[in-house]
Order: sequence, then structure tokens, then C-alpha cells
Amino acid sequence: MAKILIKNVELNGEIVDVLIENKRFKKIAPKILENIDNAQIIDGTDKAILPPFYNTHTHAAMSLLRSYADDKELFDWLQNYIWPLEAKLTPQDVYIGSRLAFLEMIKSGTVFACDMYWHQLETARAAEEMGIRVAVGEMFLQSTPELNEMNRKNNIELEKLRGKSELVEIMLDPHAIYTVPKEILKTVAEKMKKEDFRLTIHASETPLEVENCFTEHHISPIAYLESLGLLTEKTVLAHCVHLFDDDIKVIRDTGAVIAHNPVSNMKLNSGRFRFHDCLEAGCNITLGTDGACSNNNLSMLDEMKFAALSAKSQYSSPTAGKDVDVFKIATVNGAKAFDIDAGEIKEGKLADAMLIDLNNHFMIADYKLISNMVYSADSSVVDSVICNGEVLMLNRKVRDEDEIIREAKKCCASLKNR
Amino acid sequence: MAKILIKNVELNGEIVDVLIENKRFKKIAPKILENIDNAQIIDGTDKAILPPFYNTHTHAAMSLLRSYADDKELFDWLQNYIWPLEAKLTPQDVYIGSRLAFLEMIKSGTVFACDMYWHQLETARAAEEMGIRVAVGEMFLQSTPELNEMNRKNNIELEKLRGKSELVEIMLDPHAIYTVPKEILKTVAEKMKKEDFRLTIHASETPLEVENCFTEHHISPIAYLESLGLLTEKTVLAHCVHLFDDDIKVIRDTGAVIAHNPVSNMKLNSGRFRFHDCLEAGCNITLGTDGACSNNNLSMLDEMKFAALSAKSQYSSPTAGKDVDVFKIATVNGAKAFDIDAGEIKEGKLADAMLIDLNNHFMIADYKLISNMVYSADSSVVDSVICNGEVLMLNRKVRDEDEIIREAKKCCASLKNR
Repeated sequence: MAKILIKNVELNGEIVDVLIENKRFKKIAPKILENIDNAQIIDGTDKAILPPFYNTHTHAAMSLLRSYADDKELFDWLQNYIWPLEAKLTPQDVYIGSRLAFLEMIKSGTVFACDMYWHQLETARAAEEMGIRVAVGEMFLQSTPELNEMNRKNNIELEKLRGKSELVEIMLDPHAIYTVPKEILKTVAEKMKKEDFRLTIHASETPLEVENCFTEHHISPIAYLESLGLLTEKTVLAHCVHLFDDDIKVIRDTGAVIAHNPVSNMKLNSGRFRFHDCLEAGCNITLGTDGACSNNNLSMLDEMKFAALSAKSQYSSPTAGKDVDVFKIATVNGAKAFDIDAGEIKEGKLADAMLIDLNNHFMIADYKLISNMVYSADSSVVDSVICNGEVLMLNRKVRDEDEIIREAKKCCASLKNR
Repeated sequence: MAKILIKNVELNGEIVDVLIENKRFKKIAPKILENIDNAQIIDGTDKAILPPFYNTHTHAAMSLLRSYADDKELFDWLQNYIWPLEAKLTPQDVYIGSRLAFLEMIKSGTVFACDMYWHQLETARAAEEMGIRVAVGEMFLQSTPELNEMNRKNNIELEKLRGKSELVEIMLDPHAIYTVPKEILKTVAEKMKKEDFRLTIHASETPLEVENCFTEHHISPIAYLESLGLLTEKTVLAHCVHLFDDDIKVIRDTGAVIAHNPVSNMKLNSGRFRFHDCLEAGCNITLGTDGACSNNNLSMLDEMKFAALSAKSQYSSPTAGKDVDVFKIATVNGAKAFDIDAGEIKEGKLADAMLIDLNNHFMIADYKLISNMVYSADSSVVDSVICNGEVLMLNRKVRDEDEIIREAKKCCASLKNR
């Protein structure tokens, strides 16, 4: 088991050593001098240690589709570009695309992704190999008989992975209320409760979804989900752009988690999440990047800046979307939402962390570290990343990165000719 | 004089060699085999050559104040934080801060900055040393007698630099209509015309500015500037957030240049620039980052993403703020606005360029290079930067960068104790 000693690193303005043992922060104190056989020593000089990012809504393998179609109307984009290309993706493509996405995530300080996509066995395999945490889901989506059968079989295989890895959580992923019939949603809700699954679903993303829900069910999407028993502390609601006051109360009262996706919401013009109303109500807000087709990167650093600035714009105040609030939803809130005992640099917590290069120009001047992380930094400031007590990136080098890039380029080239 | 041969680089989807001689692109063609004595050879394999960025509104030395105060109301922010700290800045501080800013710019692909600040002699010196293009200005601002006298003297010194350097342009910089009295603005307008100066000014940035202008002059800020003879093809209007239809016509008809600052406008909640109305009217739109206090970085990559997404949000359409339009305002439009014969990778043009690492994860998949630049890339994709035929960054290394960082950190530490 890896033992790691990070020397002379800045934590909350002080210089400390950080000892990691058995996957947890064992000791955090100035000048740890004890005997540390077999420990990997990391020089933390001119670096700050911070909790890393937990990306609570993404579609990792869509990185293979990055830049394929932009600046389109939503349904034109989906029907004429994204879906036809997605239909060509094989399980091996999803593996390659997931590796590309996880490489990008690690390089920008992310150690966890809540992923929703096809062929999630491959995404789980990629995550495990790369040492990143992932929550993948059994897919529920009304589609062609062939795809339904494929998902059914994949779900059975996926469920066998449950509890097998400390990095991989198996969830239930009904896609959305407009793609999954009521009867199936009910079955999923029962399965969720009986077998104690976590669940994620797109919710209240577009005005059309809300409108159709009112037409069909005479209530809002959030109320509809609640009526089906789908809102619990283990529910992660992606987007939540169009919330009524009662929706916010229901989300707060049920303890459901919001995965806020400011970049995607702005790029697809889905609308604006009521950040402060939800924050003040006491909802559990987390942050996600969505997939690389509607963003188009998976950098939580970008996402934080957009979260802060879009809140300021929405509430017509520069005091909205404060740096500390935004950093919190991107880090510890995400870990908590998925019951990962991490997200804080504290003795006893699971050792997830990133080291930030304080000599990077984006970090100077240095009056406030968190302001620099939210408003100034890009991925070039992330020097090293640790997940579950293992070093995933050291001095910006990730294991196998050249091979991951090579495979991804080959795969994209082949996709163009299919 | 440096001769540079870039081998095997991608330009508009083809692989070419690029020969730079006498500061210009001399030849661009596949496999240039001619004798190239004393040429610096740059391997362009797996890289794309693109025009670099021209940042048309910034306050470089404010990088020393990055993260000092955020999430505040505008006047609280200015009066209680920014102005008191700025008052402590010496000419040497401005030199150090400008070097820090130019380092950040080069590292993110920018070769030009239109800068407005105090002690611009120091900013000009820093730019010349680092090889970056800059337009600095004689400052006009109604302030204390001491500051007015300091500006007057500095302006005389600055004017002596006129025409002395091909990298440094001396402009006139009246700060804004609310900080410069009418009589001085008139004098500046006359000087501009008689001596063929370029001029930049903050214009229509906040609702308060517009309101006060109507109260005092009974016309909009843009109409007021026109009435004083301040709108010409050599006028660069920073922000232009609150434009009336007639303002847009006047800007188009006079040929004045707009410096759009989407991040700053969103962070300070100044309002939203009418991107498409100005684009469709045929205005000359360029892009600027503003200073590191209201952004908080100087990355034109960040700025492009915000320009695109804020246009989509403003016009309630994902087809607004298209990648190609946004890339154009960030590159060639900026060069044109300042009569720099660059901004395109073309034989005969001045050799300003950046090399993009196509093996960087942000650039894969690679269906559309410009989409990846606008929506996905961060500074880590910029491998090399060339300005005026000189290499400013090669494989992410900038000359003297360690020293620039060290000096900046020392300066920030001393500022905290003044």
C-alpha cells in the first residue's frame, strides 16, 4: 500500500507536511520527522494542497465527439449530429473516450465523475485502470427494441460489479422523464429503495420538458419525480434549470442533490439555474461539466468561473456567486453527495487532493487562494493529483497519457470514416 | 535578424512549412527545401499554426492586485479596495506588474495588448524587453493636483517614445467621460486629429455612466463622444455595454473600434454588450480581457468562451456567438484595429503566430479546430508564440519567466505591508 509524504506544502496559509497512509490523511503537521520507510516523498515547496474536484454530471465518452457540432439549435444538434454519431460508438470506443475524458479530468484536478452513458462497463474499466473514482449507472431509456435489449443486458453485467471496487459505484440512471415511461420510472424507484441504489436523472433542463410535464402530468418535473418516489438523499438531479419555489422546497426537504451545469446550460441556452435561491434554501448543490459536446471541456476550473459569473449576471449583483461558495460546490459538496469520505484536507479523511503550483502566473498576486482558483486558474496550475491515496498525476505527468492520446486520435479518425 | 523555419505544421487542415524572414511570413508551402542558413528550425509536427490573440483592452499592471478584492459592489470595490491599493504602486511596481501580465499573455497566446494605466513608460519598457506588442497611452484623468501633475509629466516623457519602436504605439488615453472634463476631452480630440494619434476610452460601461451622461449632456455617452469629435477610425471604445440603436449606427459610421470585455462585464455586473446587433450592423468588434482585478486572468481563451456563451444567453439562442465569429474578434480584428499588418498566417504578413499542441487532450476530438480553441482549450494548448518574427515562447518556455515570477511575488509581498 502506497505511503506518501508531501513535504513543505501550504495548507490554509501554513506550511505543513502531509502523511498519507492506508489511503487516508494520517498526519498533517509541520515537519513530520518520523521514520517513513517506503514512502514516496513529494516536494510541496511553493505548492498549495487543496481538495480536488468532484464532477457530479458528465458523459465521459462524449469527449470523442468534441467539436463535432456546435452553435446549433438543441434538437437540430441532437437529431442531426449527436445521435447519429453516437449510434456508431462501440463498447471499445466508449472505453477509449472514457480514458480521454479521465485524462482531461485528472489534468484539471478532478478525481471523481458521476457519468451517464452507454456501455458503462467500459467506463468503469477505464476509471479503475486510471485510478479515478466514478459513479456509473444502469441505463434506463425507451428506445429501439435493439437498444433496449442492449441496455438490459449491459445493466445485468454492470450490476455484477456492485460493491466490487472502492473506486466504482453502480447507480441507476433513468435518462429523463421524457425518455423513460412512468411505469419504468416506478420500477426504478422501487429498485432504488429496496436495493439501496443511488440514482441520477436529467431534471428540469429545458422549458420544453417543463411544459410537456405540465401538459401530461399537470405538475412540474420535480413534483412528478417526487410523486414517483424518485426523490431521496441518494438522488442526483442534473441541471435543475427551471425550478419553481415549491420545487426548491421539495429538493431541500427530500435531501436530493442538485448537479449544476452552468456552461452547458449557457451553451445550449437551456436557461439559468437559481443558484442563490437554492443555496439560501439549504439545497445540496454540486457542480458538473456535462459532456464535451455541450461545454466543450471537462474542466471544473472553467465550470467554477461560469458558475460564479452566471450567478452574478442572474441576480444582477457582483456579490452573487461568491468564490468560496462556488469552490465548495465543486469540491466537498460533490464528495458528500456521493458519500465519499473526502473533499477536505483533514486527518482521517480519504486522501483525495490536488497540489497547486503557486509559482504559476495565474496564482500571482496571491491575496486569496480560492479567488485565484475560481476566477484566474486554468489547468496549468494543477501540478499533482492524488485520489484514494494514489498519485494519479505528478508534476503534470499522468501514467500512459501518450498512449491514451494516441488511441483517442486513432478512434476519432476512424469515426470520421464510419 | 532572426530567420525561422517551422516544419510540418498544420495550417487550415494541410501540412506545410512556414519560413519567417525579416519579421514576415516569407513562404508558406509544403516541404520548403531551400538553403536556410542560420535559421532556427521549429518542429511543427502535431501542431497547428494559428494567428495569435490581440487583447484590445487591459490594465496590465493590475495583475499585482489579482484576488485582492472580489464579489463586491462596484463602488465599494473601487473606493475601498482597488483605488487605495493602486495609490501605493510605484513606477517600479508597474514595471514588475506589466512583466507578470505579459508573461501570462504570452503563455496564453497573446502578442498584443492595448493597455491603460499609470506609469506607462514602465509598461512600454516591459513590453519592449519581452518582445510583445503594446499600445500605451498618455493618461488624461481629473484627479488630485499631485496626480494630475504626475500624469502631465509622464505624458511628456511618453510622447518622446512615439515612433521609436515597432512594438510600442503611443496613444491618448482619456479615462472616461465621467473622469475627464469636457474641456480636456475637446483638447484631446484636437490633439488626436492634428497629430494623428490613436485614442482609447472607457465608454458606456455602466448604467450609471449612461444615466449621468443623459442628465448632464442630454445625450448618450457615444453621442457625447461623437459631439466632441472623439469618434474616428482610430478610436477604441472599451466595454460599450449600454448601446442604443443610434449609438451602434454612429460607431459603425465613424469606424470606431469596440473592445468587448465579456468577463469583466459579467463579473462586475456591468450589463451585456449587444454582440449580434453590432456584428450585423458591421461594427469593428475586437476582444479584451480588462485587468486582472475584474476578470481575473488575461487569457483570451477564457474570454472567447465567455464571449460566445454570453452572446448565446443574451440572444436566447445557441446559434448566437458562433465560434468563428468569436475567434475573429479575438485575432485578426484586433490586429486590424491597431493597423498591425498581421493577424493572418499568410505570406507577406508580419509574423505573429501561435503553435497549438494538437496532442493536448483539450484538442481531441478534432472535428473543428476553431471550435476547440473557443470552447475547449485553455492555455496549456499553446505550445509556442511568435511575435514580429521573434520567438517569445518555445515549447511553453518564456525567457526569464522564473525571474519575472520571483520579482512579482516579492512585489506582492511588499504591497501587503505598505
